[in-house]
Amino acid sequence: MEDSKAPVSEHGGETSKAAVLGVAASSGSRRAATRGLAVLDLILRFVAVIASVGSAIAMGTTNQTLPFFTQFLRFKAQYSDLPTLTFFVVVNSIVAAYLVLSIPLSIVHVMASRAKYSRLVLVFFDAAMLALVTAAASAAAAVVYLAHKGNARANWFAICQQFDSFCERISGSLIGSFAAMALLLLLILLSAAALARS
Amino acid sequence: MEDSKAPVSEHGGETSKAAVLGVAASSGSRRAATRGLAVLDLILRFVAVIASVGSAIAMGTTNQTLPFFTQFLRFKAQYSDLPTLTFFVVVNSIVAAYLVLSIPLSIVHVMASRAKYSRLVLVFFDAAMLALVTAAASAAAAVVYLAHKGNARANWFAICQQFDSFCERISGSLIGSFAAMALLLLLILLSAAALARS
Repeated sequence: MEDSKAPVSEHGGETSKAAVLGVAASSGSRRAATRGLAVLDLILRFVAVIASVGSAIAMGTTNQTLPFFTQFLRFKAQYSDLPTLTFFVVVNSIVAAYLVLSIPLSIVHVMASRAKYSRLVLVFFDAAMLALVTAAASAAAAVVYLAHKGNARANWFAICQQFDSFCERISGSLIGSFAAMALLLLLILLSAAALARS
Repeated sequence: MEDSKAPVSEHGGETSKAAVLGVAASSGSRRAATRGLAVLDLILRFVAVIASVGSAIAMGTTNQTLPFFTQFLRFKAQYSDLPTLTFFVVVNSIVAAYLVLSIPLSIVHVMASRAKYSRLVLVFFDAAMLALVTAAASAAAAVVYLAHKGNARANWFAICQQFDSFCERISGSLIGSFAAMALLLLLILLSAAALARS
């Protein structure tokens, strides 16, 4: 008999064999679905890298010099004038670096769809990076809001009235960071779904 | 025979029964460990509720009136003067409400330790709330930093030099929110670990 090495009792061979085949078929289609999730995970990671790198570059390269100056002062604005925007550039670079490093692990998950503990590690670090990029994006958004609107009660002046193109640039660079945030949220959901399926 | 209703073939009863008992024993100890994770999850949720409610109350009830005033102005500071701090109070209330609503589901997980899809829902909403509370806490932190240090390049004045007790209070109220953030990060890890074990 061919299936004598299988861990089913030899006497009930016919029914057991059918049951084993059924389990194999259903776990096969399950594995294919989990592999689909892993491929989607890989694609989203690439998009998130582009979003956060784009965000860091857009913020890091912005500066504006006003066309008038006094004897002592040149009116020049760049991201490093505001510590929060420096934090934004640093964090987006860190998150992009993490995402690049996580891509090999994501490729492993496409091959080995039953991996559990490496997925668990990814969920944790994805959540930590979600917190980090959200912190940077919203702190920068709070400062950009102040730059646009100012605050009458605190006597903070709306600097965007002078530095208009600088303000447009720093507002735009927030988009990539918020996109990376949404993608990381999706990545956590995908990893958790893969864990629930395995 | 007692186990005739069980889905094992009757002929190989002895070996199959032993195998089933072995599986049951190992899944029993596994289930106990998963239940331990679920109890920890429940406790952390209670702590996170206290942290975020405390944070919202500390920020919401703060105000300071300076002991001098002119004919037209009274110098008074409260959280609603800065939109970012209003956002902070609103988000902390929302997160606290979500955490309270999630407690019944967490209790269900202590009983039914094999629940998968409800854990998946919790992971997703926990991650969304993590993003929300991080956004509020770090936007408020950015504004509190400006209130303390000001910014010479943007001509933003450090209002904490006048409103000292107001500033101490709003700085302190950030702690609860950052604690809630760390707890939510742990809760995501716990749910993912429970999913990996089930």
